[in-house]
Amino acid sequence: MFYHPEESLQRSELDQLQTERLKAVVENARKSPFYAERLKGFDTREISTPADIVKLPFTTKDDLRSQYPYGLLTRPLDEFVRLHASSGTTGSPTAIFYTQKDIDTWADLMARSMHTAGIRKSDVLQNMSGYGLFTGGLGIHNGSERLGCLTIPAGAGNTRRQIKLIRDFNVTVLHIIPSFALYFAQKVREEGFDPKDMPWRIALIGAEPHTEETRQRIEELMHIKAYNSYGLSEMNGPGVAFECTEQSGMHVWEDAYIPEIIDPVTGEHVAEGEIGELVMTTLRRDGMPIIRYRTRDLTRFIPGECACGRKHRRIDRIAGRADDMLIVKGVNIYPMQIEQVLMSMPEVGQNYLIELFHEGFMDQIRIKVEIKDQFFVEDMRALQNLQKSIASRLCSEILVTPRVELVMHDSIPKAEGKAVRVVDLRDKE
Amino acid sequence: MFYHPEESLQRSELDQLQTERLKAVVENARKSPFYAERLKGFDTREISTPADIVKLPFTTKDDLRSQYPYGLLTRPLDEFVRLHASSGTTGSPTAIFYTQKDIDTWADLMARSMHTAGIRKSDVLQNMSGYGLFTGGLGIHNGSERLGCLTIPAGAGNTRRQIKLIRDFNVTVLHIIPSFALYFAQKVREEGFDPKDMPWRIALIGAEPHTEETRQRIEELMHIKAYNSYGLSEMNGPGVAFECTEQSGMHVWEDAYIPEIIDPVTGEHVAEGEIGELVMTTLRRDGMPIIRYRTRDLTRFIPGECACGRKHRRIDRIAGRADDMLIVKGVNIYPMQIEQVLMSMPEVGQNYLIELFHEGFMDQIRIKVEIKDQFFVEDMRALQNLQKSIASRLCSEILVTPRVELVMHDSIPKAEGKAVRVVDLRDKE
Ligand SMILES: [Zn+2]
Ligand SMILES: [Zn+2]
Repeated sequence: MFYHPEESLQRSELDQLQTERLKAVVENARKSPFYAERLKGFDTREISTPADIVKLPFTTKDDLRSQYPYGLLTRPLDEFVRLHASSGTTGSPTAIFYTQKDIDTWADLMARSMHTAGIRKSDVLQNMSGYGLFTGGLGIHNGSERLGCLTIPAGAGNTRRQIKLIRDFNVTVLHIIPSFALYFAQKVREEGFDPKDMPWRIALIGAEPHTEETRQRIEELMHIKAYNSYGLSEMNGPGVAFECTEQSGMHVWEDAYIPEIIDPVTGEHVAEGEIGELVMTTLRRDGMPIIRYRTRDLTRFIPGECACGRKHRRIDRIAGRADDMLIVKGVNIYPMQIEQVLMSMPEVGQNYLIELFHEGFMDQIRIKVEIKDQFFVEDMRALQNLQKSIASRLCSEILVTPRVELVMHDSIPKAEGKAVRVVDLRDKE
Repeated sequence: MFYHPEESLQRSELDQLQTERLKAVVENARKSPFYAERLKGFDTREISTPADIVKLPFTTKDDLRSQYPYGLLTRPLDEFVRLHASSGTTGSPTAIFYTQKDIDTWADLMARSMHTAGIRKSDVLQNMSGYGLFTGGLGIHNGSERLGCLTIPAGAGNTRRQIKLIRDFNVTVLHIIPSFALYFAQKVREEGFDPKDMPWRIALIGAEPHTEETRQRIEELMHIKAYNSYGLSEMNGPGVAFECTEQSGMHVWEDAYIPEIIDPVTGEHVAEGEIGELVMTTLRRDGMPIIRYRTRDLTRFIPGECACGRKHRRIDRIAGRADDMLIVKGVNIYPMQIEQVLMSMPEVGQNYLIELFHEGFMDQIRIKVEIKDQFFVEDMRALQNLQKSIASRLCSEILVTPRVELVMHDSIPKAEGKAVRVVDLRDKE
């Protein structure tokens, strides 16, 4: 049933394995110039449970930048066989190095992840993502071959050729970026094919964060099961956390990583089930271990146990970036929380705007919400009820009462490109 | 000194190995629907030396097309982990399938090839070719990792980022397409860097056929050693034949392939050292063996032994496609032969035109040659001498006496895009 024996470990076994491996990681990390300095004075014997990880310092993106390119390497450069680098278009670049052992570990984790989503050796996988420095391409490719799938390195673009390959070779699994999947489903229809008749059954769409609604749309439009996953190059790439066939959160492979969720301001663990910043530690990276890496990605642990039987903790889909966090009346608020509430209400249109301002010494939050035309009626009472209902739902999610202002469809100015969702007027006063 | 023991095999040992492996290939190939039929009635015991390969039938591109997609597979589909397909924009597509063992064999041959060109584990290789269905990307990538080089999957394009990666990571080896190399050398200068100061030392430029002059220009402009190689997806991809550090022809790895050179019309072997069509047989492809594949590529065996000590036969750089061959007075002539003679003469300009026509029942060949302005002088005798000298050099190369006509610079009309070099007027008469 499971691909690796590690998948069936009980919680106590996972805890023990994590403890042992965390100790080894600390010892290994000290071989790098960066951690030799950073971990000076830390006694590895202070670790006796995974929870002791809080005694270790964080590692940030800025640390990776300042150590570029070789500061985190624990081995001589000629023992490495691969590097992936960020483009460095924003700020300084970062680079992640892999030994052959690291590449093998990654491929194994990736193969396990795909198996977890129901993919088998007999599947035919078309890898529709770009290759190159982006870890998604080679990561999925190596995992697919490791699992034994017939792997088609189609790369990105060229919709017609993609369709031809899928039909000619009875492709059963697609690795496809979610935003491209929506376009692709349309194109398949335009080329005269019914998605129902296509041979595919599974789409891996974890390459970019997306909502549950997007997943459901992809599943409906393509007649496919779409699986979410989580990865980042600092933790190898894809294959860090993956949905099982229950599709209820992504299992973090806790034999290979220790996940934590912290308050981005205080650095303390949040209460179980609360949203915060995901912090990750590699337990099986040999050449470039990274301890307590602040991913800046927001998510929460999903409480309880998964019906699949795996005890590896699950994280929820990514709900934005820590840098988006707002503090209002001392409470952490994530715009994604507000968006989720609004988008769940049928009366609400596509656009909204969050405004923060001071009233006296108090923070206030005002949310302008576009209402669909058919609900923007003359009946004042109906509108008032809608307004109260939105405010109350938001309050129970963000724990602060916002002022809700209903506005007409298309009345919030749209910026070119990325939508502006938050205006903070507090600094200007 | 050598990467694999097979590199030091003596000729008699290679012959023996080829004989054994060829027998095994025939037996394995029979498991595929295509060869079961094609080899019906052939008794494997008829093979007792590699020369007996001529008793086997050819396989053509059309065969691959008619058998698309699965006709040449010797194993169940779920034992394959990779396929590369031609784009199929011209004519029907072809597809090549690989088992895990085939991928490993390919990576090994590729690693050996790179080692032969002087690349070592301590090198840093930047793979500047596209990935995807093109075998050059993943082929070089896997070989580089297999050899233990630090491999940067940069992919194609983005010149500035390429330069930054090369400088940041002290890249010593580039895999780069020759036409891009010439552009890239220019760009590096424009960005303010002297190629002499760049960390590179070796460029692999085998991805597209090119002349010796192009290689020398790349070497001079980039201050680099540029190595040619030969490969095609039907024989895995790159890693079929590679230049050693002697740079005097490409060693075909004869423990893995049997190369032949034939007259494209008669199908008979040409005399040693003569140009003809390269025919290749896989000796180590498990899932999809191909016997006597007509590559349509023109080359010749380089006579004699290489100073490096390897006995694996060498082929010359590709001199065009068999489809370009002309038959004049019963003699095979390749336009590339004519081009090579012309381009070796300092008086000759960039353009020329080959015209074939009938005179009575006889084929005639006329070659219009543009002469550089400074040589197009009033002195009739000097021009006549030049004309005779060109005709005589051409005759000793193509074994037919052409009529040579000297014309002024820019007097031969240039077509848009690809130059028209041959006009055959014989069909029209
Ligand atoms: Zn599960
Ligand atoms: Zn040699």
